[in-house]
Amino acid sequence: MSSIALNTSALGEALAARTADGRPISEVFLVACGGSLVDLYPARFFLATEARRLRTDLYTANEFVHAAPKALGDQSVVIVCSHGGITPEAVEAARISRVRGSLTVTLTHNDSAEIAAFADHNVLYEWGDESSVQNNPMAITLALCLEILQHAEGYPAYQDFRAAIQQIDAVVATARHKVGERTTAFAQTYRDAELFYVLSSGASYGHAYGFAICSLMEMQWLHASAIHSGEFFHGPFEVTDRKTNFIVLINEGRTRPLDERVISFLERYAERYEIIDARELGIGVLPKSVVDYFNPVLFYSVLCDYREALAKVRNHPLETRRYMGKVDY
Amino acid sequence: MSSIALNTSALGEALAARTADGRPISEVFLVACGGSLVDLYPARFFLATEARRLRTDLYTANEFVHAAPKALGDQSVVIVCSHGGITPEAVEAARISRVRGSLTVTLTHNDSAEIAAFADHNVLYEWGDESSVQNNPMAITLALCLEILQHAEGYPAYQDFRAAIQQIDAVVATARHKVGERTTAFAQTYRDAELFYVLSSGASYGHAYGFAICSLMEMQWLHASAIHSGEFFHGPFEVTDRKTNFIVLINEGRTRPLDERVISFLERYAERYEIIDARELGIGVLPKSVVDYFNPVLFYSVLCDYREALAKVRNHPLETRRYMGKVDY
Repeated sequence: MSSIALNTSALGEALAARTADGRPISEVFLVACGGSLVDLYPARFFLATEARRLRTDLYTANEFVHAAPKALGDQSVVIVCSHGGITPEAVEAARISRVRGSLTVTLTHNDSAEIAAFADHNVLYEWGDESSVQNNPMAITLALCLEILQHAEGYPAYQDFRAAIQQIDAVVATARHKVGERTTAFAQTYRDAELFYVLSSGASYGHAYGFAICSLMEMQWLHASAIHSGEFFHGPFEVTDRKTNFIVLINEGRTRPLDERVISFLERYAERYEIIDARELGIGVLPKSVVDYFNPVLFYSVLCDYREALAKVRNHPLETRRYMGKVDY
Repeated sequence: MSSIALNTSALGEALAARTADGRPISEVFLVACGGSLVDLYPARFFLATEARRLRTDLYTANEFVHAAPKALGDQSVVIVCSHGGITPEAVEAARISRVRGSLTVTLTHNDSAEIAAFADHNVLYEWGDESSVQNNPMAITLALCLEILQHAEGYPAYQDFRAAIQQIDAVVATARHKVGERTTAFAQTYRDAELFYVLSSGASYGHAYGFAICSLMEMQWLHASAIHSGEFFHGPFEVTDRKTNFIVLINEGRTRPLDERVISFLERYAERYEIIDARELGIGVLPKSVVDYFNPVLFYSVLCDYREALAKVRNHPLETRRYMGKVDY
């Protein structure tokens, strides 16, 4: 299996070789589908926020395949993530990237994945409850993008970011312990819920989306929608009433005021809302300069416990599917 | 009132003056909230797809304010759109852009808008059923970004794009005429619906989002969620059954296969879905090189007729609000 140190060092060498002729890396494209796309969102937010020059974008794989950006070329790095490594549009995205001459990095949990055939560098990542979150695709992609940014233009908080990667597993373990009883209470309260809105901001918005589309829609066949905390007040909040269910992921860091504004509204006009607050769960021990980017790593692990509890009380195992992998589409 | 010709010419002069010292424009930030953010999405997709070098990003205003990108500076153009021109976070976004030395363009429908005080160039746009879609914020922003791209690096389909802007009003008029009876039938079929999923791809995904959060959630207090057609098969489609309601906006252009794949699935496993197909509605007369970017202009106008019909049959006027502009938040 993979380690962050190993992968960032290999990427560093590949970047050095690639730019030896003096032509710098000019953009990073992050490409995947569904849950894997969610894992790339924090790195996209990190680069978009911190890069002075480097361009970045996030694509659902089939859009990347059908409407590939003109910029895609030999000054691009493309990171494609596919858990099973065989999703046709993800494989095709990696193939196109190679054809265009981009430095192509693939991430997968499958050691015989088709997608690796189109990679300059393939990362085999760990998965499952016993794995270290450091070695999950979300943190690995953050670490890879940290190296790319450092290589391309330097990043003042580079050492803080590396330190945070070393600290995040302990933070997550403490947080999961803290929410133990809360997940049971949550499952009891929302056992008959049919629809949830999931809100967050910053690096964690992607994970609000992920909890909606993967954990609730895919794994529980429940209706769900992600709303950016900053967007809530510009349309969506008009559905608020005392029956509607909300889950709000409150970030530590710069966009915290956006999430807190949602809570302050829900306190007045809603009744059924669950708050998961990264600060209260202990993420504040990470360096302030980079804490924003680690909120979603915490939220992902904690929310796995929430969905497990909900699945149990609903008698709807997380693995149950009616279409995915069962019918043609 | 404004005209595209007037505004693009003024912007062209501002860009020429700004880059006279040889330092080019390096990024375009598009910033707004809710319905105005939706109006900026097609231009964001256009630049992300067509620009070889120019960087672009789209921000909900309060995220831009609290976590402004480091790249924001005197080589940036920032376009901020606010219908009323007084939304605090949009005004603040414009103010920050000026402070950072960016070329700041504001768009508003309010001729005494506070936001214009922070603009290098303010565009007062037309609005309402009788206005030309050419002079609505979606097309104006597309036209402004076309000029920026042409100025920054040249764009091979520049003339095609200009031609399409001239053609789009006639296309929209024909399409609206075509859907007249369909909107009544739609309203009858879905009069008791409580939740919709709205799907699209490419430049139109932003409009799927807009129809969900503005037309349905804000104006009808109905539950709704936008799903990217490419993402549908990676989680969301597991909620599909014969009772769930879908609206699918099928694009003409490169991402059409993504939307068609959704339809082919819904034909087998759903019963309640409305198809709005830009090709069938006549958008194919626009130049093939640029047609992708004009789908959402068509969809917006046509969907206004759908929502009007739905509002009528539900006896819920489009203007009714319970929180927006009525309570503090």
